[in-house]
Amino acid sequence: MDPGVELLGRSDLEALQLERLRRTVRRAARSPFYGARARQYGIDGERIKSLEDIRKLPFTTKQDLRDAYPYGFLCVERQHLVRLHISSGTTGQATAVFYTQRDIDRWADLMARCLYMTGARPGDTFQNLSGYGLFTGGLGFHYGAERLGLLTIPAGAGNSKRQIQLMRDFATTVIHIIPSFALRLMDVMTEMGVDPRRDLQLKIACMGAEPYSEEVRCRVEAFFGVEVYNSYGLSEMNGPGVAFECPARNGLHIWEDAYLVEIVDPATLEPVPDGMLGELVLTTLDREGMPLLRYRTKDLTRILPGDCPCGRVHRRLDRIQGRSDDMFIIKGVNIFPVQVEQVLMSIPEVGSNYRIVLDRENNIDTMTVQVEVTDRIFVEDMRHLQRIQNKITRELKSELLVTPRVELVEPQSLPRNDGKAVRLVDHRNPYNT
Amino acid sequence: MDPGVELLGRSDLEALQLERLRRTVRRAARSPFYGARARQYGIDGERIKSLEDIRKLPFTTKQDLRDAYPYGFLCVERQHLVRLHISSGTTGQATAVFYTQRDIDRWADLMARCLYMTGARPGDTFQNLSGYGLFTGGLGFHYGAERLGLLTIPAGAGNSKRQIQLMRDFATTVIHIIPSFALRLMDVMTEMGVDPRRDLQLKIACMGAEPYSEEVRCRVEAFFGVEVYNSYGLSEMNGPGVAFECPARNGLHIWEDAYLVEIVDPATLEPVPDGMLGELVLTTLDREGMPLLRYRTKDLTRILPGDCPCGRVHRRLDRIQGRSDDMFIIKGVNIFPVQVEQVLMSIPEVGSNYRIVLDRENNIDTMTVQVEVTDRIFVEDMRHLQRIQNKITRELKSELLVTPRVELVEPQSLPRNDGKAVRLVDHRNPYNT
Ligand SMILES: [Zn+2]
Ligand SMILES: [Zn+2]
Repeated sequence: MDPGVELLGRSDLEALQLERLRRTVRRAARSPFYGARARQYGIDGERIKSLEDIRKLPFTTKQDLRDAYPYGFLCVERQHLVRLHISSGTTGQATAVFYTQRDIDRWADLMARCLYMTGARPGDTFQNLSGYGLFTGGLGFHYGAERLGLLTIPAGAGNSKRQIQLMRDFATTVIHIIPSFALRLMDVMTEMGVDPRRDLQLKIACMGAEPYSEEVRCRVEAFFGVEVYNSYGLSEMNGPGVAFECPARNGLHIWEDAYLVEIVDPATLEPVPDGMLGELVLTTLDREGMPLLRYRTKDLTRILPGDCPCGRVHRRLDRIQGRSDDMFIIKGVNIFPVQVEQVLMSIPEVGSNYRIVLDRENNIDTMTVQVEVTDRIFVEDMRHLQRIQNKITRELKSELLVTPRVELVEPQSLPRNDGKAVRLVDHRNPYNT
Repeated sequence: MDPGVELLGRSDLEALQLERLRRTVRRAARSPFYGARARQYGIDGERIKSLEDIRKLPFTTKQDLRDAYPYGFLCVERQHLVRLHISSGTTGQATAVFYTQRDIDRWADLMARCLYMTGARPGDTFQNLSGYGLFTGGLGFHYGAERLGLLTIPAGAGNSKRQIQLMRDFATTVIHIIPSFALRLMDVMTEMGVDPRRDLQLKIACMGAEPYSEEVRCRVEAFFGVEVYNSYGLSEMNGPGVAFECPARNGLHIWEDAYLVEIVDPATLEPVPDGMLGELVLTTLDREGMPLLRYRTKDLTRILPGDCPCGRVHRRLDRIQGRSDDMFIIKGVNIFPVQVEQVLMSIPEVGSNYRIVLDRENNIDTMTVQVEVTDRIFVEDMRHLQRIQNKITRELKSELLVTPRVELVEPQSLPRNDGKAVRLVDHRNPYNT
């Protein structure tokens, strides 16, 4: 733990942020990309008088990183770099992130802080069930764990049986694992007759890299007998170690000494109030090789209001709710599929699948929500179905501020695409069939 | 470069070794395994008066490591460990190697020294085409490269096309690669029309982890336009960084400040003179978590006599010639298949394959060497064949001190097992058919 930073008062933290933000803006201008922007917009560190002044700066997007590949964001000479990570992304064109030795050290410090926060200590055995190499999750956790003095097993991804053998032989207490591999490991252990609560010493599981629901957390905790800590990061911001849960596990503390956080409406790009869902925008405050200003992460989350009982002033992010790319606009209102999902999943009569269908009738947008009911509902009871339909409509309207048409359908009747649920069908765009 | 260590005079280096050896013997006795041995043999650091006194100590074998798995060789409390590597070996039962933070730092120093010796410098881009995780080759080179200040790309193994893309995009100058992957990459580049000499900036290739011949080195150098540096290490001795070539490339300097080297006859376990082939036996001189005393590596090599023009006093090992497990005894003489191979391959009329057949006739051991001639030989010329046969017999006798029967056979006529040449057939053991 770094009490000098983690337990700073809010005003001291913000003073530190402002100092670092000004330094970052000045430093960023050394890169070809931000240098051109600085000339274009006439912005330098001196014009940043308060943290709010960051809004004078334009956003940086993934596309900017792609266009400037490979060296457009570099602020130091190449001989000062010691590391390069690549993310190939889903669309093909790669983006590169460069690190100086100082960047690697600060990143390891942040990761050590995260692991310390979960309760991991020297004497613990940390098994890193994560791919190494260009993926930042492996080396990121690895360096943090060694920095903290954990006995680190660079186990890598896959090879379930060897993973279980290692956990047993070295009494592993802390793991880092992606959610889908955790679920897979549960199956393998069950097949092998391994009961982690009886046969292993696991206490803590750090899970991230893929979004996962509270339900997955509960399942993993119950099976392995661990506390699961949610981990958030992205390679553009070093990798893991951007935000992490504390033992209160009421959201992820974002390390505000290293990252300046904004939540914006993805349509208007204006800030949204605390508690409201929006796109996470991050500015590096302590990076030397490749600072990024107002980087649009595309990840949807919100700032959770209120203080954390752990005493850390660093604000808390809600778990990632999805990608801003999924947002749609209907009757002038921005809606994320996840908002619909949250309403539906809180209603016990709703089954496991639903679908949003957008259409245009007489030049008016319509939104239909098709909802599978659970197989515990007797579908011949029309009055009961009508009550459920009314309840769903009411609650969606209250959340979304538009009134969708709600259709109840039988369990397992909605189409699936390669086993994956299709959440949104937009018939309004003639090119999008 | 560490001139204080690398350019020490011989007597200063040996004084350093003796001091470290005594410290290592004392420290090792803290482990359960060496503690029991120290009581059994009455040996402690005080009885080590000279480097030769190491011969009072018994050897340590891979089987000892297996039997003591997992913690039998540990000299520190678990909370002082930060890393664990596992080697599963060919026979299944794993062995574990533990590292303190100091061990990791010293290992990174040794690797940085190796890379520096090849000419790599800050400003170079180092692409590590090596598996990460439990395999020590990946993280070993990675830490050394960062320590030296190279721009390190943790590319990992496989994915040839992405490797080539990375080399191109980031003007990679130094690579670490295993020989079989280098040969594979040559094929892929040829298919893609990539000419490394024209399209890439490669200068240096570090190759190790698998034994390879001088012929493979020449092919890789010619194709990639690089200088290939031979790398030697084993996970029991940290991993890579035990011995490495300097620009003279006349053998691998073994870092004698970190490893005490012996070459022994694998049958008698007595030391062999410099220049003679034998089994490499290593003692760690600078390891804290898990010292090893007189570890039998099973690797066959020799000390190359004479001084190196580079000025380093650390002695040079010949490239690894094979495994001592392959040794056989005939008429009381120890012979390695590689000795036979070296004689044969120096004779131009010999083709690419040969086979050693051992038999027992009237209680007398016999050794027959079947040799494919090259397809440039006109096999009907009996007098020519007789001359070749006589030459081979004479040279084998001079090297081995036994006289084998030599049979010349036609090209491609000797049996192969799954495409792999069978070098030794021993009919003397009735259980070994
Ligand atoms: Zn907290
Ligand atoms: Zn030399």
